[in-house]
Amino acid sequence: MASKGPTIALDAMGGDAAPEIVVCGAAIARERFPDTRFLIFGGGDRVRSLIAENKALAAQAEYRDASTVISADAKASHALRTGRDSSMWRALDAVKQGEATAAVSAGNTGALMAISKFVLRMPAGVDRPAMASIMPTATGETVMLDLGANLECDADNLFQFAILGALFAHATLAMDRPTVGLLNVGAEELKGSDTIKAAAQMLRAREGQLPLRFAGFIEGDDIIGGKVDVVVTDGFSGNVALKTAEGAARLFGQFLRSTFSSSPRARMGYLLARPALKRLREHLDPRKYNGAVFLGLNGIAVKSHGGSDAIGFANAVGVAIDMARHGFLENVRAEFERLQTLGLENKTASL
Amino acid sequence: MASKGPTIALDAMGGDAAPEIVVCGAAIARERFPDTRFLIFGGGDRVRSLIAENKALAAQAEYRDASTVISADAKASHALRTGRDSSMWRALDAVKQGEATAAVSAGNTGALMAISKFVLRMPAGVDRPAMASIMPTATGETVMLDLGANLECDADNLFQFAILGALFAHATLAMDRPTVGLLNVGAEELKGSDTIKAAAQMLRAREGQLPLRFAGFIEGDDIIGGKVDVVVTDGFSGNVALKTAEGAARLFGQFLRSTFSSSPRARMGYLLARPALKRLREHLDPRKYNGAVFLGLNGIAVKSHGGSDAIGFANAVGVAIDMARHGFLENVRAEFERLQTLGLENKTASL
Repeated sequence: MASKGPTIALDAMGGDAAPEIVVCGAAIARERFPDTRFLIFGGGDRVRSLIAENKALAAQAEYRDASTVISADAKASHALRTGRDSSMWRALDAVKQGEATAAVSAGNTGALMAISKFVLRMPAGVDRPAMASIMPTATGETVMLDLGANLECDADNLFQFAILGALFAHATLAMDRPTVGLLNVGAEELKGSDTIKAAAQMLRAREGQLPLRFAGFIEGDDIIGGKVDVVVTDGFSGNVALKTAEGAARLFGQFLRSTFSSSPRARMGYLLARPALKRLREHLDPRKYNGAVFLGLNGIAVKSHGGSDAIGFANAVGVAIDMARHGFLENVRAEFERLQTLGLENKTASL
Repeated sequence: MASKGPTIALDAMGGDAAPEIVVCGAAIARERFPDTRFLIFGGGDRVRSLIAENKALAAQAEYRDASTVISADAKASHALRTGRDSSMWRALDAVKQGEATAAVSAGNTGALMAISKFVLRMPAGVDRPAMASIMPTATGETVMLDLGANLECDADNLFQFAILGALFAHATLAMDRPTVGLLNVGAEELKGSDTIKAAAQMLRAREGQLPLRFAGFIEGDDIIGGKVDVVVTDGFSGNVALKTAEGAARLFGQFLRSTFSSSPRARMGYLLARPALKRLREHLDPRKYNGAVFLGLNGIAVKSHGGSDAIGFANAVGVAIDMARHGFLENVRAEFERLQTLGLENKTASL
């Protein structure tokens, strides 16, 4: 138990197949990152016995009983009022208390967002946290934010998201001064709302002082096209874009399956192409991209997809470990402190 | 020339490969819809000789010289100030004057939107026109609007778009009382901005008096999933969703090509599956879905994709003909008049 690796707090009760996929996911993550410890918050004997079944995990995990569970359909405001003793809240509180490096939950997204904001708070200079995720693209991988934490954003929010997204890409994808694009309805400077134009102006004017290269406006097809390393947008269109891309991927798989089973000849073609198609499927495996992250908090909180399996959950844990290992929080604090020193804290006002 | 079919006004100068694809597209459309006449507005001898080369088209087309062309990168405001003698403007004016049933252009989208709004105006009860398009889905086809004409929308706009989209689906996809969904970040009633919640309330309260069935909120993946017949959203997220879906489709095509050429075995699989894959490609052929339509005007104006070929352009003409044939404009006028009689014109206020 006295390793120097990170300690990850887990909400064992969140997700459609909890607690099984959480404990199983922790076991997989432990194999990948052998120096990791786990603080597992759960609701009873089932979790305890699942942990005990895996001796290697049990040796690096501590179980703590939480008396309540936040349900998948609870309103965020309700969870915030009543969830103090829940497995989710206690996992986040372990981060706040310094017992854990990061918290991972596959539970209620709105509740996780609200509670992590309430418990962990934002560092100076960050007005609102954002939800970010990594997506596969034509050329590699792209970070997109916000994905739904802030349905409406002002120019300051978008400016801050650009910095947070760039630091996240740096920590998890080893990108140095990543390119950042603002999602818009056209690439021309004249397009878009006043908010987005103001954000572009701020980023263009201060690019030299920021840990990113500003690539200007991009359009919906540029996200998956991999035109930039980080896509910044408001939570409404970010959520729409992410889910549209996921829906397109699902539809494509469905079309492909029905195409390959449409005739004996097509089925034979499938059998021949199967190894190559398997590599394609692996490249697009949604479990690889599991784990939405709340950026802009004084702590690491990762949301695993509610319908994820153990492998997906282990990947979400991996994202948390990457962020911790590469000093994401320290970089955010340092960057926003530096901006304040530079007098850039009142951003819109100072233009 | 004395046929009873529709007359379509064409802007011969708009689009990357104009005027060739426009005249060629008209010739293809004429074969499909033999009773159609064309009023072709162009800039000079090239267009005239292209028309003359196709005798069947020439017999049903009239050429008119336009002295200017609106460039692809002109600002809408500039086009509106200076574009009166352009091929685009004159095509729209022919609709306004009753000489043509509809106008089709592959030119500058912003200019086409601004000029068609200025020339054609809106019928009583419609505050703003919207841009709509048909998309392929898992189960068939879906109409989506707005796609970028209105970056920010209030609840009244969204309410009106729902009616316009339903009538468009009725005219072009023969859908009776189509289902309409409001794009949101979650399907639960509590989610989303106040604007979208107010629009949902209006649609729910008045569904019985509208030519549609209100299906509530939908999410990004439901668009391509084909959950509803008509997707209503603001122009910013509609544009992002459409382009994200297009980008995803392109990426899959690219992945598939590289997968099938990755080994001799995969190439052989491709050869066997080719007929089935060809059907898939046909189902998703973007040319089939060419033609964004401005809904909510006193006239039919269709935008063909600027990069379209002649087949795509002919499909855009087909959309215009479908709208005319199935009385889209008459239905819109009647529907909004009826709503005003019912006292529903001050929509948000009357709730």
